[in-house]
Amino acid sequence: MYKAGLVGVTGYTGMELARILATHPQIELVCATSRQESGKKIEELYPFLRSYAVGSVVVSDYDAERMAKECDLVFLAVPHGTAMASAGELHAKAKELGKSLKIIDLSADFRIKNAEIFEQWYQIKHSETELLKKAVYGLFDLYEEDIKKADLIANPGCYPTASILGLYPALKNGIIQNDIIIDAKSGTSGAGRKAQVPTLFCEVHDNFRPYSIGGKHRHTPEIEQELSLIAQKEIFVSFNPHLLPIDRGILNTIYAPLAKDCTAEDIHGLYEEAYQNARFVRVLPLGRLPETRNVRGSLFCDIAVTVDKRTKKLIVTSAIDNLARGASMQAVANANLCLGLPLDTNISHAPVCP
Amino acid sequence: MYKAGLVGVTGYTGMELARILATHPQIELVCATSRQESGKKIEELYPFLRSYAVGSVVVSDYDAERMAKECDLVFLAVPHGTAMASAGELHAKAKELGKSLKIIDLSADFRIKNAEIFEQWYQIKHSETELLKKAVYGLFDLYEEDIKKADLIANPGCYPTASILGLYPALKNGIIQNDIIIDAKSGTSGAGRKAQVPTLFCEVHDNFRPYSIGGKHRHTPEIEQELSLIAQKEIFVSFNPHLLPIDRGILNTIYAPLAKDCTAEDIHGLYEEAYQNARFVRVLPLGRLPETRNVRGSLFCDIAVTVDKRTKKLIVTSAIDNLARGASMQAVANANLCLGLPLDTNISHAPVCP
Amino acid sequence: MYKAGLVGVTGYTGMELARILATHPQIELVCATSRQESGKKIEELYPFLRSYAVGSVVVSDYDAERMAKECDLVFLAVPHGTAMASAGELHAKAKELGKSLKIIDLSADFRIKNAEIFEQWYQIKHSETELLKKAVYGLFDLYEEDIKKADLIANPGCYPTASILGLYPALKNGIIQNDIIIDAKSGTSGAGRKAQVPTLFCEVHDNFRPYSIGGKHRHTPEIEQELSLIAQKEIFVSFNPHLLPIDRGILNTIYAPLAKDCTAEDIHGLYEEAYQNARFVRVLPLGRLPETRNVRGSLFCDIAVTVDKRTKKLIVTSAIDNLARGASMQAVANANLCLGLPLDTNISHAPVCP
Amino acid sequence: MYKAGLVGVTGYTGMELARILATHPQIELVCATSRQESGKKIEELYPFLRSYAVGSVVVSDYDAERMAKECDLVFLAVPHGTAMASAGELHAKAKELGKSLKIIDLSADFRIKNAEIFEQWYQIKHSETELLKKAVYGLFDLYEEDIKKADLIANPGCYPTASILGLYPALKNGIIQNDIIIDAKSGTSGAGRKAQVPTLFCEVHDNFRPYSIGGKHRHTPEIEQELSLIAQKEIFVSFNPHLLPIDRGILNTIYAPLAKDCTAEDIHGLYEEAYQNARFVRVLPLGRLPETRNVRGSLFCDIAVTVDKRTKKLIVTSAIDNLARGASMQAVANANLCLGLPLDTNISHAPVCP
Repeated sequence: MYKAGLVGVTGYTGMELARILATHPQIELVCATSRQESGKKIEELYPFLRSYAVGSVVVSDYDAERMAKECDLVFLAVPHGTAMASAGELHAKAKELGKSLKIIDLSADFRIKNAEIFEQWYQIKHSETELLKKAVYGLFDLYEEDIKKADLIANPGCYPTASILGLYPALKNGIIQNDIIIDAKSGTSGAGRKAQVPTLFCEVHDNFRPYSIGGKHRHTPEIEQELSLIAQKEIFVSFNPHLLPIDRGILNTIYAPLAKDCTAEDIHGLYEEAYQNARFVRVLPLGRLPETRNVRGSLFCDIAVTVDKRTKKLIVTSAIDNLARGASMQAVANANLCLGLPLDTNISHAPVCP
Repeated sequence: MYKAGLVGVTGYTGMELARILATHPQIELVCATSRQESGKKIEELYPFLRSYAVGSVVVSDYDAERMAKECDLVFLAVPHGTAMASAGELHAKAKELGKSLKIIDLSADFRIKNAEIFEQWYQIKHSETELLKKAVYGLFDLYEEDIKKADLIANPGCYPTASILGLYPALKNGIIQNDIIIDAKSGTSGAGRKAQVPTLFCEVHDNFRPYSIGGKHRHTPEIEQELSLIAQKEIFVSFNPHLLPIDRGILNTIYAPLAKDCTAEDIHGLYEEAYQNARFVRVLPLGRLPETRNVRGSLFCDIAVTVDKRTKKLIVTSAIDNLARGASMQAVANANLCLGLPLDTNISHAPVCP
Repeated sequence: MYKAGLVGVTGYTGMELARILATHPQIELVCATSRQESGKKIEELYPFLRSYAVGSVVVSDYDAERMAKECDLVFLAVPHGTAMASAGELHAKAKELGKSLKIIDLSADFRIKNAEIFEQWYQIKHSETELLKKAVYGLFDLYEEDIKKADLIANPGCYPTASILGLYPALKNGIIQNDIIIDAKSGTSGAGRKAQVPTLFCEVHDNFRPYSIGGKHRHTPEIEQELSLIAQKEIFVSFNPHLLPIDRGILNTIYAPLAKDCTAEDIHGLYEEAYQNARFVRVLPLGRLPETRNVRGSLFCDIAVTVDKRTKKLIVTSAIDNLARGASMQAVANANLCLGLPLDTNISHAPVCP
Repeated sequence: MYKAGLVGVTGYTGMELARILATHPQIELVCATSRQESGKKIEELYPFLRSYAVGSVVVSDYDAERMAKECDLVFLAVPHGTAMASAGELHAKAKELGKSLKIIDLSADFRIKNAEIFEQWYQIKHSETELLKKAVYGLFDLYEEDIKKADLIANPGCYPTASILGLYPALKNGIIQNDIIIDAKSGTSGAGRKAQVPTLFCEVHDNFRPYSIGGKHRHTPEIEQELSLIAQKEIFVSFNPHLLPIDRGILNTIYAPLAKDCTAEDIHGLYEEAYQNARFVRVLPLGRLPETRNVRGSLFCDIAVTVDKRTKKLIVTSAIDNLARGASMQAVANANLCLGLPLDTNISHAPVCP
């Protein structure tokens, strides 16, 4: 039984991590931290976890030394900036103790390989540039072998996960032009669990709205970095997110002009080939389209390809559960891999529909 | 008091027409038809209209002669194909009676000016090609004077209303290239009130999905026809709709490459100028974005312009209430105009938020 | 044109008041206050009010003197305790100025006639006991004549409105025993617009939960006071509220043992008789039940009576829109009455369905 | 690996059974039937099950002989009346074949032990009265030992499960009077997957309504039968259901006058004692209340006890997932037990929240 720590248990990603670890046969959550909820049991915060062992874990203040000592693995589910500092401390403490400590960071702090680009988009100084070099981007469909050997994993962002998986076969095979538009829609859990008026029920329910339109969203450089690596040239995207009145789910509609005269059948074949060994990517048959409910509570990314013949565009639609595939369940997949467990340990749940 | 008839009271557009007419000071609904609900009072179908005079109107079978005799105005809220036949009959009966009868068709039957294009997309023969020539496209922001004089008004589709208003100033001023993508999202009332599994609550709630992706949706030729008229050249669009888990509301995110080096400020100025006399179009200040709730239950179309400088695109977001501005309230606006009433009679409601 | 002030524009009741007054033909909102939003235009807070004159009103700090001078009428949409202090100040200033100033308080401060009972349930001292004696309970269906003459109106609570109207004919006619259970369900706008985790979208959506079960809710003494006045004896209720994942709407299911052998038909007759002159109460035909959507955005209270013959109980179901009938639209009805306007001025809207 | 059949795969209970069996380590779904969908793969109906073996099962017409031959266990997820006939046939075929065949009926056909009462409430003749005598009521918290030995299990109704578990300790200990009111609220999946207007998204969303008020709902005799067995005297209830705009979840608020002077602490103690060995009943600490989301997708029944001291009533609130605990997951629990597997095999999922 591996012992896991969780820094930041009060957000939705922390909550979802606690939920997934509640039934994990080989990873036990032994330590969960939060400044404001310290002293409470997890089941007091999250009554749905009552009667699971994890529910009895008492939330504590963050203590890097204790965590480094007690844990084999730490999940960081805190805001960017904070995560970077904790990763640095934990890494240093583990080194002092001469032990292996795997760190999985759910924030953006170790996703952007170029610290300058990070600083420009996130408007803070990167204080752990040495550690940044060691971080592995945790998209296991593409980087499974690197993840297995990593000590520090930058867990991908939710929008980037759905975007990169949606475009990987097209860019790898050079069938689209470098003029990509991503029209993204996310469930509200992606906006976090902070008390604020714009995400109150009555502000979101029966409503739909865009935000950060026109290339302003911070997931843009993460998407461009990964797409450029795949295409082996610099790729730019126009990334435009919207807020959905649903709990979980991202659906991206991705537009790109075709670079060659491809049929939908050709492209579908390339997608099936690219993902033939990717258990958690489901390329849908031609004519079928993804829905967020079909992946709810699961690790799947569902992808459909469509060709708009009249305007000569490839249209890819991809769907994930932003909390599961886009954050915590992907983090547990990465934990499984770097601990030497089978990828799918405790995360092969069937989607919850309806 | 003008007397109005309503052919097809059982769908959501018929329901919304009954609702709006319930309090109209100068149009009285005297006749509402439905095959399956004939004999019932409107308030039995729609208990929310109890205690209004309209609630006591008894639903009847469709009878063209009676309608032509009793009414000054008829709304057709029946499926395409059926609407065309009724319009033909009503027009003929009115001629026989030597009286004026205004017809407002909420179906697609008289929207497409070229019958061949209509037939190709709707897969039925157009039986009223003479009448088609007389029909006026009922987008009052652009065609108010024509509507005032019309006998037959083709009430615009919901998606086209939000799309055309969103693009009109840009195309009129020639600032975008002919490579337009419309990523459209609609509330579920747009899918109609027919008993069918895909629009059951548990199939739509907490879900989001695309449909008719890749240029397959029938609103495509309507949008292209009107945009081409504005641009005075043939315009093609990639129109891609999605289904939102909300009752009312359409939000379009529209992408087009800039044709010239325009700033957001320039474009915002052109939009404000184009709509300076359009009471029911609200061009939002730069930095603000539309939300479906801000137009719920109203005739407004809210529009924002954004420039993605990195990828040199104009991004227009436009929002309407699909049932109100996209169908029945727009139909009443058209009715007001062609009866010689002020445009806003009984339809200047403030949006219902939350 | 009467001039109105609004103390507390940032909550949902303030927002709804601004919305209703936006189109009122005889009351103009000239002054709206908020500490945190002072200096902004109303349309910046509430973009759905853009293009209405009310949208251009600049929010200001609360200033009793200015308000008393400029206004004929003030709505208090601030928390209990605060409202009491403002009412006292405004009343005193108006007296100094020798002018009439109508005050409509949407808080609980002047609803409970007995200050001791108020203090016991609300845990604060009542500082305006003299003013309390002059306050009229603003349930216009029962107290229209008193309201017309009042200077200070205690606008009823949302749950009490639906409860009292649901029970009035039964208690007045002595057909039920004094053992009443009210199982109440409210939309989330009733919980206010404060930034807090329990009313975030992801905490409320696709969820349902009871709260304040077992006679702990502060609306209990208000309901009991009014029911006791109607029954002319002391009435106790077990009032138990629940939170619904909807924006607007309250539905109460009220249980009471029958005191006599009455049929449903008998009771229905008594209800129809009791409300024959109440334009905004709709007693449904036997066999029909209310739904929150049937009253959405309107002043109606829909009521159905059912008899459970097997267990000899009267079951009343009553529905209102908590923001409209349960707060701001009822406040405008009271404003109309005390200014000498027809009750229904600008508030006879048809419900917004769907 | 046990082989299971499923009669009726197209409803929500069939869908949920397929979902749960998709990952079951010891029960394999080998045969699923539906008249209208025969010939399609399960993954065509339910794309969320794509990539699971169960997704490839081809839906077939119902064939009792084949099913009896191939299966160790059959789930009946068809309407009442139909289920009874299938159970009779399957039982007879198995007897002919000399093999054991476990039948788990999710309909109401074998729940009411007295055929006359069944016929009176369901308005059809009971054709399998001999088989009815052998049926065991599948509420495993109370009847685990009987279920282990049963060949035919009547899977409890959704409302009855939450009602009986909520009242069991109170009735067993004689602390309440025989005057019970159950105010029940259910998610819309409980209304089935049939195409019909009243459960369309736009009829349910942002709405709340009662139905079958006043002792008319068919779950009444089932609840009364089981409560009478527990209390060992005839119990009557006033059962009143309401429809919630959520997918999954039932919350019952149950009222009963106290028979003795009990404190909340006393009663809480009795509840904890009664359920000390019931793994899937969670008696909440005093002061906590259940929420439907806390049990979503799980087998838990969460129960809280509250005493309204002012009116001397016990108020029990109980929550389940109507599709999981109230139907298909409870059916799999019963399947596990009657096949000799541990109760919780594959159904100890943590609730999915949010």
